[in-house]
Amino acid sequence: MSKIGEAKILRVDLTAGETKEETLAPEMVKKYLGGRGLASKLLADEIDPGIDPLSPENRLIFANGLLTGTNASTGGRYMVVTKGPLTGTIASSNSGGYFGAELRFAGYDMIVFQGKSEKPVYLQLMDGKAELKDASHIWGKKVDETTDILVEESGDERAKVSCIGPAGENQVMFASIMNDKNRAAGRTGVGAVMGSKNLKALVVRGDKSNFDYDKEALMKVVKKQTQIIKDDGVTGEGLPTYGTKVLDNIINETGGYPTRNFQEATFEGTEEVSGEALVEKGYLQKKKACYACPIACGRDTKLPSGRSGEGPEYETGWSFGAACGVNDLNAITEANYMCNELGLDTISAGATIAAAMELYEKGHIDREKLENGPELKFGSSEAIVYYTKAMAYREGIGDDLALGSARLGEKYGMPEVSMAVKKQELPAYDPRALQGMALNYATSNRGGCHVRGYLVSPEVLGVPEKLDPQDLESKPEWAKIFQDLTALIDSIGLCLFTSFALGAEDYQELVNAVTDYDLTTEEFMEIGDRIYTLERQFNLEAGLTKEDDTLPKRLLEEGIPDGPMKGKVAHLDKMLPKYYELRGWDNNGVPTADTLNKLGLDEL
Amino acid sequence: MSKIGEAKILRVDLTAGETKEETLAPEMVKKYLGGRGLASKLLADEIDPGIDPLSPENRLIFANGLLTGTNASTGGRYMVVTKGPLTGTIASSNSGGYFGAELRFAGYDMIVFQGKSEKPVYLQLMDGKAELKDASHIWGKKVDETTDILVEESGDERAKVSCIGPAGENQVMFASIMNDKNRAAGRTGVGAVMGSKNLKALVVRGDKSNFDYDKEALMKVVKKQTQIIKDDGVTGEGLPTYGTKVLDNIINETGGYPTRNFQEATFEGTEEVSGEALVEKGYLQKKKACYACPIACGRDTKLPSGRSGEGPEYETGWSFGAACGVNDLNAITEANYMCNELGLDTISAGATIAAAMELYEKGHIDREKLENGPELKFGSSEAIVYYTKAMAYREGIGDDLALGSARLGEKYGMPEVSMAVKKQELPAYDPRALQGMALNYATSNRGGCHVRGYLVSPEVLGVPEKLDPQDLESKPEWAKIFQDLTALIDSIGLCLFTSFALGAEDYQELVNAVTDYDLTTEEFMEIGDRIYTLERQFNLEAGLTKEDDTLPKRLLEEGIPDGPMKGKVAHLDKMLPKYYELRGWDNNGVPTADTLNKLGLDEL
Repeated sequence: MSKIGEAKILRVDLTAGETKEETLAPEMVKKYLGGRGLASKLLADEIDPGIDPLSPENRLIFANGLLTGTNASTGGRYMVVTKGPLTGTIASSNSGGYFGAELRFAGYDMIVFQGKSEKPVYLQLMDGKAELKDASHIWGKKVDETTDILVEESGDERAKVSCIGPAGENQVMFASIMNDKNRAAGRTGVGAVMGSKNLKALVVRGDKSNFDYDKEALMKVVKKQTQIIKDDGVTGEGLPTYGTKVLDNIINETGGYPTRNFQEATFEGTEEVSGEALVEKGYLQKKKACYACPIACGRDTKLPSGRSGEGPEYETGWSFGAACGVNDLNAITEANYMCNELGLDTISAGATIAAAMELYEKGHIDREKLENGPELKFGSSEAIVYYTKAMAYREGIGDDLALGSARLGEKYGMPEVSMAVKKQELPAYDPRALQGMALNYATSNRGGCHVRGYLVSPEVLGVPEKLDPQDLESKPEWAKIFQDLTALIDSIGLCLFTSFALGAEDYQELVNAVTDYDLTTEEFMEIGDRIYTLERQFNLEAGLTKEDDTLPKRLLEEGIPDGPMKGKVAHLDKMLPKYYELRGWDNNGVPTADTLNKLGLDEL
Repeated sequence: MSKIGEAKILRVDLTAGETKEETLAPEMVKKYLGGRGLASKLLADEIDPGIDPLSPENRLIFANGLLTGTNASTGGRYMVVTKGPLTGTIASSNSGGYFGAELRFAGYDMIVFQGKSEKPVYLQLMDGKAELKDASHIWGKKVDETTDILVEESGDERAKVSCIGPAGENQVMFASIMNDKNRAAGRTGVGAVMGSKNLKALVVRGDKSNFDYDKEALMKVVKKQTQIIKDDGVTGEGLPTYGTKVLDNIINETGGYPTRNFQEATFEGTEEVSGEALVEKGYLQKKKACYACPIACGRDTKLPSGRSGEGPEYETGWSFGAACGVNDLNAITEANYMCNELGLDTISAGATIAAAMELYEKGHIDREKLENGPELKFGSSEAIVYYTKAMAYREGIGDDLALGSARLGEKYGMPEVSMAVKKQELPAYDPRALQGMALNYATSNRGGCHVRGYLVSPEVLGVPEKLDPQDLESKPEWAKIFQDLTALIDSIGLCLFTSFALGAEDYQELVNAVTDYDLTTEEFMEIGDRIYTLERQFNLEAGLTKEDDTLPKRLLEEGIPDGPMKGKVAHLDKMLPKYYELRGWDNNGVPTADTLNKLGLDEL
């Protein structure tokens, strides 16, 4: 029986091949709620932040949010928390679909993997029984095949699978963990950690009636909130109708749509590959929802050839599209499908190819190095597909691409080619155009990322209010609030997209409905602050410093060359000091003793 | 035992489910040699030219050339002869690979199918034994799958397969018959006839030692000719190195590269999809040769995704490329692979989509008619792939596309949209730019076609000598010679490409080496004339008239709008009378009694 507020953990020692059950202290749950927060606390308690992320000493934690598996709208998300190989920071990567809820029904809030199995294994968790099984027959298989085989072998077609593809097995630095075939815990290379442990997959199946909480109290709140979500322009209309790719034309028109590895900021081919084109060109089949989601932003698509899959989403359409100068929707979608099947983060995969294209065009990579592969030219639809496969299997130059753009740039003598923060590739918003995003990128605890504080919302969409994207004064405070609120949403197991319609009070109300915490909004937001600062502490102990709170030189020094934001650069120096101050960090970005004490982090 | 000069026939009555052996009179073989000539004679003798091509009354003849299976360079070709459903003319479609030679080793020069099987069957011809077998398990399967299954079932991995795909089963008017997976008897809809007879495939396997002729005498001639072929610029270097796509840039630069359904004559995207791009973009894997071929113009290719196949050749690269305004090599190659797998003629498939695009852009096809498919816009890489599949399976508007451009144009109220002669789509040379090709297209006995007299050779490549492409005076004679010589090459079973290096005397020498015919060049060329005139007679009896010796109105009346040939139209009226006269046909294009008598066709 799983109860909200009493975190039940399955600990799996892969070295010993043993599993055991544990329960976390309720006070710890109250301080971190679940998911990203609670698992980060556990990770910080259990490992030395200085370890090699791909060593057996690392932990790989699958963690449900406090509300995962409840009827809360979008309450189906789980997080994977570990030390990330791409960034060397704490890594938490978040995914939707149905796996998280099923894990909750199977009786667990978290599964903690430690050590390393001698041979490939997978964890089967069914009918309350946890078993490590031989995975030699599925090692090397793609995500879709692996999923089909394991569901078949489980004997229960309702079983849910989370697994790695060949990219994770080959420890590609930005390998993802995929669940329900096409949902990704995509970023920071969590799949490589899973591969390093010889862990291929998790198969879970549970009984919903095992999961106990005050359903009536929750439903009262959920009903009200679902209506708010449905009435909202973004969550009720934009996302359901067009998916995330509704943003393509919007962001391109703001002049902050990074093109050809951030060498430009508007892409002439956007219309050809936009969300609208996805419909006109016959790719879109139907929209698709995750567990308990009233939004359904997912896109079931089909290539003209008849091959089908999910995506592209906004970020993927950009990373293989504008970032690589490619205006070919078929190639972008094919590359997306391949990332899903091979288990690659689509942002880092596309952005690393973009960096490689700049390296090639500027003479740092020779034609010979590419062997028989297509030329790495901006605009080459052949290149994005071919090198996506090559990096997953680490074939030819794919072996270098698998390191990510930062290490690739270093290896080929042009480190500044990498458009990354803390070695993780930036997503589809040029921070020179959106100063709030500049600050967020620089201070994101998992490296370059848009979902650690999505200031695009106020800076472009005007939600909850319109901010001038070039204003610097207001951004530190907004950044802190968005970062803390995001940490909360990731810890209660809801989808970040709900925050277009809901605010802190709404989430707080949900938590109070199923617990006896009776949190005020202030107390609730402080939990977010605590999680964010805990992650910061981990990273500092891992060896990062304020020097890492920065952006690629190009974005700080070279003005945008084209479009409405022509001439703009990112002004981090004007925002960081105030941000540190608001966070209660000193001039070096280190949390003060007072701050740690206030947040209850001095007991670490 | 198979002997050159004694045509051994396997007659297969599909209605009765019976097979029997026959032998043709040696005098008849001497008059028509084999392949296209001999099978056309047989067809003309056995069927009423007025029949419905898709009725059981039609014959479907697989015929080897006189030299097929010998060591003559490129001597591996077989022909399929029937009354064609697309054109209503006599149809002979020619293919390379290994199937023809294997059929010869299996002991037969021809297989004549008649009637119609009640259920799907295939013919297995192994160890001298002919058997009709149930094909219900492979009906609906693609060409590559069908081939693999039948080779497996035959128990001999050396068995060769010729078969139809879903397009032939569904009687698409331009369905092909495919052998060795990727070699096509592509044009005129021979695959639809095969489908109409419920015949899915032929599987053959024979013993080379069964095939008797004076090998020593032949080898002396072959040795000399092979050297000529290897020393020739086109067959020794151009075709081996670049394949047929070496022509892309050449023809585009002449200003005769039909673009967007012949609305223009130069294509701005040629460089992106040329033979050179096939290498640069990493598609080309290796070159591939047919039986006994020293040229090896075939291209084993691979898409960036890893999917592999053969092609595109020049014509296919054009039909899905420039003709549809598409500059996307991946989509073109994918469409090519699909045609091979589904069994579609690539020229008619691409050109019919091009016609549909013009119909759509000019408002004759509504958006609704396309259902969820991509818009039929020139330049749409999605459309060429999607509608290729749709026409093979006759899904949605694909059911209309499956009729070919002529019937499609009629159905949608704009017959002039069809760039066809005798309802068969024209290939990749604008006849306004090449007047010799204009005359050839108009007088080709199987409808719009470039391999019934390839005057591109003198008009562009200067082989055997350079002709002014706009000169009208010289073309009737050149046309007749090329048409007759091509009929001969198709009847002795060699590849037309040898004619870049070899002349009539060379082919005559090969024939004389393995027979006691002792033909003079004049006698040899007269056989070509006889075959061509026999075909003409068949077509006239089928109801065609001189009104069918024409070109689409656009090519006769509208000047080329762009490029080096700007303003040119095709001048058929200035060439046809002289051509008829040279052929010994009257003003109505009907062979005179004298001509028939001279050619020995009055005994028909």
